[in-house]
Amino acid sequence: MRPIVTLLSDFGTADGYVAEVKGTVLSRAPESVIVDVAHDVPAHDIEAGRLALARYWRKFPSGTVHFAVVDPGVGSARRPLAVESDGRFLVGPDNGLLSPALLLAGAKAVELPIPSGAAPTFHGRDVFAPAAALLAAGSHLDALGSPVTDPQIRRTREARRIADGAIEGVVITVDRFGNAVTNLLAAHGGVVEVGQLRLPVLRTYADVAPGTPLALVGSSGLIEIAVRDGNAAALLGLGRDATVLLRTARR
Amino acid sequence: MRPIVTLLSDFGTADGYVAEVKGTVLSRAPESVIVDVAHDVPAHDIEAGRLALARYWRKFPSGTVHFAVVDPGVGSARRPLAVESDGRFLVGPDNGLLSPALLLAGAKAVELPIPSGAAPTFHGRDVFAPAAALLAAGSHLDALGSPVTDPQIRRTREARRIADGAIEGVVITVDRFGNAVTNLLAAHGGVVEVGQLRLPVLRTYADVAPGTPLALVGSSGLIEIAVRDGNAAALLGLGRDATVLLRTARR
Amino acid sequence: MRPIVTLLSDFGTADGYVAEVKGTVLSRAPESVIVDVAHDVPAHDIEAGRLALARYWRKFPSGTVHFAVVDPGVGSARRPLAVESDGRFLVGPDNGLLSPALLLAGAKAVELPIPSGAAPTFHGRDVFAPAAALLAAGSHLDALGSPVTDPQIRRTREARRIADGAIEGVVITVDRFGNAVTNLLAAHGGVVEVGQLRLPVLRTYADVAPGTPLALVGSSGLIEIAVRDGNAAALLGLGRDATVLLRTARR
Repeated sequence: MRPIVTLLSDFGTADGYVAEVKGTVLSRAPESVIVDVAHDVPAHDIEAGRLALARYWRKFPSGTVHFAVVDPGVGSARRPLAVESDGRFLVGPDNGLLSPALLLAGAKAVELPIPSGAAPTFHGRDVFAPAAALLAAGSHLDALGSPVTDPQIRRTREARRIADGAIEGVVITVDRFGNAVTNLLAAHGGVVEVGQLRLPVLRTYADVAPGTPLALVGSSGLIEIAVRDGNAAALLGLGRDATVLLRTARR
Repeated sequence: MRPIVTLLSDFGTADGYVAEVKGTVLSRAPESVIVDVAHDVPAHDIEAGRLALARYWRKFPSGTVHFAVVDPGVGSARRPLAVESDGRFLVGPDNGLLSPALLLAGAKAVELPIPSGAAPTFHGRDVFAPAAALLAAGSHLDALGSPVTDPQIRRTREARRIADGAIEGVVITVDRFGNAVTNLLAAHGGVVEVGQLRLPVLRTYADVAPGTPLALVGSSGLIEIAVRDGNAAALLGLGRDATVLLRTARR
Repeated sequence: MRPIVTLLSDFGTADGYVAEVKGTVLSRAPESVIVDVAHDVPAHDIEAGRLALARYWRKFPSGTVHFAVVDPGVGSARRPLAVESDGRFLVGPDNGLLSPALLLAGAKAVELPIPSGAAPTFHGRDVFAPAAALLAAGSHLDALGSPVTDPQIRRTREARRIADGAIEGVVITVDRFGNAVTNLLAAHGGVVEVGQLRLPVLRTYADVAPGTPLALVGSSGLIEIAVRDGNAAALLGLGRDATVLLRTARR
């Protein structure tokens, strides 16, 4: 089986940075299959990277190596990590980006050494790409570095029940379509309050007329605020951390 | 031969959506070769997706599977389709996006069933990616669903001859360079009228001085309005559906 | 070994142009492995393309074919080139874009013929993609065209020592993060003057507080002006050709 190496970064798609990473991987593990995830993660936005990673890392076959680098602390004391979790491998900075894999039972992490010639501003090329190539070529995780037992973990803030029985959540990310994804768990039959709006939780965009806002259970199981054929974040002024309330039918 | 699976979508390049599709395909058809077409098709812009697809779908080898998903009606009654045409396969929504392949003589289409657990808002991952994987792994089209004989078709509006002998066309799309592609068929020797401008149909950008507007026969055989080293759409105020006139030498 | 074909262009990621190139390569050299470099190079920006190419072309294995097309002169008298340099192959326009490979000792270039049916506005598809496929399939460079001994060369402007002993350089490009890359060679211990600011050359972003500007030696060995967790180009008003001064400790 050809080893798959996926790439997530905030390096953008106008420069040569991503290509330096790809060339490094292919020079060291020529049989690997490079698969782009996304390189337009907002610059330095670890949280957006973490939420993207959560969606896809287990969708790939066992043995896949995920390169995930959103790394504002590059060159500082933050550790470079390699992780093995549920049969997949991941390389990236110890800043919480890799939490979705680290939080799974049985996950193991090691600290990658920094080669003497590594550029302090580009560990993607000089630390993580070589490690991804080693894993793609069959190296064991243990061979890559010394164990890390306290990696940095980021979690999605949990929604909480408030005084009047409603559940208070927040917008955790806004996608390309302007859908505002919240931390509210699926609740068909509920009603979401966004400012003055009361939005029943529906099934899909087409359940309302074009231009109309709605709530629905998104494809990751979380409630989203959307506008059919429109951009909910822009139209409703919703950004990350905006507060939303869920009232369930049971109340 | 390794099966090729190309991906066109409006999912963008900042989220994990595209990667969920890729992981799903590679998990089910590990030998397939993923090829990105474009993921920055304007959100919900079926027409832009259709025109892009028209350009490339037959450029790939026989047996290629084209995943093409611009799907504002996802989760509604619109049917999910798989298509076989001229030796290539396509999967995508029944909203006209796949028309370039459907319009070819001999094209066959089937309606894909929606698995019970499919997210109503992400058929790309839960309906079209699994179907693409099946086709890549060698399944016959007939095995994927029941025949569809009335798929939705979109066509580029035809230019028409008007009273004074000129041909009236419209801008059908604007590309990344700001070139305005019209529905006027190639006519070397003609003159295109855009507002007050009269632009002879030339061969290439370099036939005029930098900053100068011109008309030319584009690489798909349609007349385009361009500005050498500039952005014609922005400079001339040309958007989709703008009217243009062609006067041919023969008149 | 599967031949690698990398793709750099300014075609963007919303149209079908890139896919036409990929389909053409895969139809003619089905075993080739397509690797995207970047397609969002600013339209017509040969200089940005050249600087990106300089970063990655030798990072890929010997035998790799680099398709690099930023080609405002397409269809004019400018020659289409194929190049062999340091075991890699390149195809692209003779406008200086390929200089990083052409400047290396032993580089060879040939002029590609233009097939009679080629679109004068899309040599990427009709001239360069077929040439890339031939090279990927094992053709010798000499078989592709007649030798070119005077290809157009672009060089990064050299920094120069000025009257008071300082070195005067310029910003040569701004990356996605807003880091302004200069033509000043690495000089740890120096101080860079940007307008009224005096910035010591540090090791990495984390050497200063968030929001603070700094100078550092970037991953290509050139001095960059950055702002930790911020966008230096925007915050300091730095664009291409902006003047910067380097004062070294030795002075």
